[in-house]
Amino acid sequence: MSHSEIPGGITAPHGFVAGSAYCGVKAANKDAPDIALIFSQHKTVAAGTFTTNKVKAAPVRVSRTHLATADVRAIVANSGNANACTGVPGLRDAKRMCRATAKTLGLREKQVLVCSTGRIGVALPIEKMEATIGKMENCLGRNGSIAVARAVMTSDTFPKEFAVEFSAGGKTVRVGGVAKGAGMIDPNMATMLCFITTDAAIGKSTLQKAVSVAVEQSFNRITIDGDMSTNDTVLVLANGAAGNKPLKYGTKEFKAFQVALDHVMTELAWMIVKDGEGVSKFVEVRVAGAASLADARRAAEAIANSTLVKCAWFGEDPNWGRIMDALGYCGAKMREELVDIFYDGVIAVKGGMQSKTPLEKIGPIVKQKRFTICVDLNLGRAEYVVYTTDFTTDYVKLNMGDGIGG
Amino acid sequence: MSHSEIPGGITAPHGFVAGSAYCGVKAANKDAPDIALIFSQHKTVAAGTFTTNKVKAAPVRVSRTHLATADVRAIVANSGNANACTGVPGLRDAKRMCRATAKTLGLREKQVLVCSTGRIGVALPIEKMEATIGKMENCLGRNGSIAVARAVMTSDTFPKEFAVEFSAGGKTVRVGGVAKGAGMIDPNMATMLCFITTDAAIGKSTLQKAVSVAVEQSFNRITIDGDMSTNDTVLVLANGAAGNKPLKYGTKEFKAFQVALDHVMTELAWMIVKDGEGVSKFVEVRVAGAASLADARRAAEAIANSTLVKCAWFGEDPNWGRIMDALGYCGAKMREELVDIFYDGVIAVKGGMQSKTPLEKIGPIVKQKRFTICVDLNLGRAEYVVYTTDFTTDYVKLNMGDGIGG
Repeated sequence: MSHSEIPGGITAPHGFVAGSAYCGVKAANKDAPDIALIFSQHKTVAAGTFTTNKVKAAPVRVSRTHLATADVRAIVANSGNANACTGVPGLRDAKRMCRATAKTLGLREKQVLVCSTGRIGVALPIEKMEATIGKMENCLGRNGSIAVARAVMTSDTFPKEFAVEFSAGGKTVRVGGVAKGAGMIDPNMATMLCFITTDAAIGKSTLQKAVSVAVEQSFNRITIDGDMSTNDTVLVLANGAAGNKPLKYGTKEFKAFQVALDHVMTELAWMIVKDGEGVSKFVEVRVAGAASLADARRAAEAIANSTLVKCAWFGEDPNWGRIMDALGYCGAKMREELVDIFYDGVIAVKGGMQSKTPLEKIGPIVKQKRFTICVDLNLGRAEYVVYTTDFTTDYVKLNMGDGIGG
Repeated sequence: MSHSEIPGGITAPHGFVAGSAYCGVKAANKDAPDIALIFSQHKTVAAGTFTTNKVKAAPVRVSRTHLATADVRAIVANSGNANACTGVPGLRDAKRMCRATAKTLGLREKQVLVCSTGRIGVALPIEKMEATIGKMENCLGRNGSIAVARAVMTSDTFPKEFAVEFSAGGKTVRVGGVAKGAGMIDPNMATMLCFITTDAAIGKSTLQKAVSVAVEQSFNRITIDGDMSTNDTVLVLANGAAGNKPLKYGTKEFKAFQVALDHVMTELAWMIVKDGEGVSKFVEVRVAGAASLADARRAAEAIANSTLVKCAWFGEDPNWGRIMDALGYCGAKMREELVDIFYDGVIAVKGGMQSKTPLEKIGPIVKQKRFTICVDLNLGRAEYVVYTTDFTTDYVKLNMGDGIGG
């Protein structure tokens, strides 16, 4: 029941077409398309997760409602403007994006999900966007995934797409996705935009369960700067074009689907971390031996979000003292004299103190582009892992701001 | 009952002498003294607050115990080495610092409080320190405050001292202090080293009450990077040399003392913020109209600790969108459509949306070295204020690390 990587992103699964267009929301540069469209040629079931931020962008509010529709067919997304903190006019504009898309594709407004990313607090240039969307039918194609991945980029430096296929009862099932990330990535939710398509036949509630599990294992495990966006959204459409027997929760076919979905989301999440603003290192932070899962998570996230720890990584300085410090203030149960800390499996701290390992053996580990920090609290059996980055001068430069937005 | 600023720092109050010496813990440079000593020529009562970090440096553990002593007479402090994460040998070394000081000054070990600041996880060069402390009696003087302020500096760029005097029942009472700060400043406690002396006559429990109030209004209101150190300590010695009638809780003389103590600690706290690593701006973040004090605090601290908000300030970009974002994820009760945000009293956000104030009016405000952000949640009556800074490329450079320590 193993799956394999395939090209094609969100248009790898059968029955999906996608494309993008230039409207001028993001940049004056016509080489930077900023509206993306995904369309399923077959009836779908849809699932999703949204930001837990109390300040929710207008498209988040609209998509949450539309997700209840029986047959969602399309996703429309723009970059350059988040349509957040825009009040009632913002909600109206998000709905107008759905309506324009529905008109172009011959759908009802509620069959369209909508996402926005970019500056906060500025009204969308909605008339211009409606005009652009009105002409987008012809841009849709079976190779459109990369166009979507590019159109949703903001400070991202590369487009993010990934797809896999596996066999279920003699049928080939595909799962593909695109994502955008960079700044404001924190694990309090699916903190970015991610669109997943699959040609699996699956029921709506079964799909939602699988999506919640996959998000928890992937996007909720990544953190760059500890901030959480107002627009974070994961949307999943399943259209049944693979012709498989509908996946039932708990069967081995369902499990294969879950593994495939986890894999696609994890790859996209890791791409987001690697493309974090100004990032130079990819660090896995694993906390074991915690008294509870909540404690393991608290400790791992405190380490991964400590600016002092992250600055030290940027400086390629092992600096386990700052990790001990974060463990001490994070609120997790811990006893200083029980803590062991490993760098790529090499022990640096034993019982809360410098181990016998000479620092010269730890130095080369943190000089790598990728390494793992493992903390053993030696108190219990709970474990948690997060994926994060260092904190760089480039991050600060990139986030000095260029307007009022996010 | 007003007080006035006077020179002299911790040696402004009568009956205190202080000084410093070079031992080589901090630097090879003999112009950088690294051991400080404060001595009261009269019987004292002592009070203090310590880090709430579960990882507590050895000197914190020792001073907490010694603080219970009836007649504390001296404080010994070193910079360059935090004596944290040093286990049982670290505790023994902290006690040896007290014992060496006691021997030099003719005291008992328990009459000495001890502090350390600097690198984590490295053993103190205790023999060398004992030898240095053994010769420190002659360095003590009535003008020694500035020497102490310099000797405790780590990445601080200027020494921090402040003193005031006021009249109580015809007697002049003085309160003076020195502090060190820079990195790892977060308001979960008196997050730095601060030594306060006063010649007020006051009972031990009354002094402790006054100290707790003053710390809450000053050091607990400042944040630079959201990290909290393993060594943070505020120590206060009162020796009664002013000859005033012992201050009774609730009297107007006690209130004058409280105001004076608040003022000294607040000035020192602000100096710490202004001297935060790589800092270019001093920002007051005030949250009003919160449903509870806890919510007001949560919101103010979330804004003050958001790396995205702080990077925007560094870039002199008003970026109220990132403030809205932080309000949304901080956990405080809030309704997006009720939020107003003011920059130095000028409204930028009204009801969760861009106000009618043109952005050109907000721009010059964030270009200043110092400004105030006031958020009104318009939900209740609770208010909280914190003092913080921007987040700069220099901060990252300064914290890239140079060893294993803090």
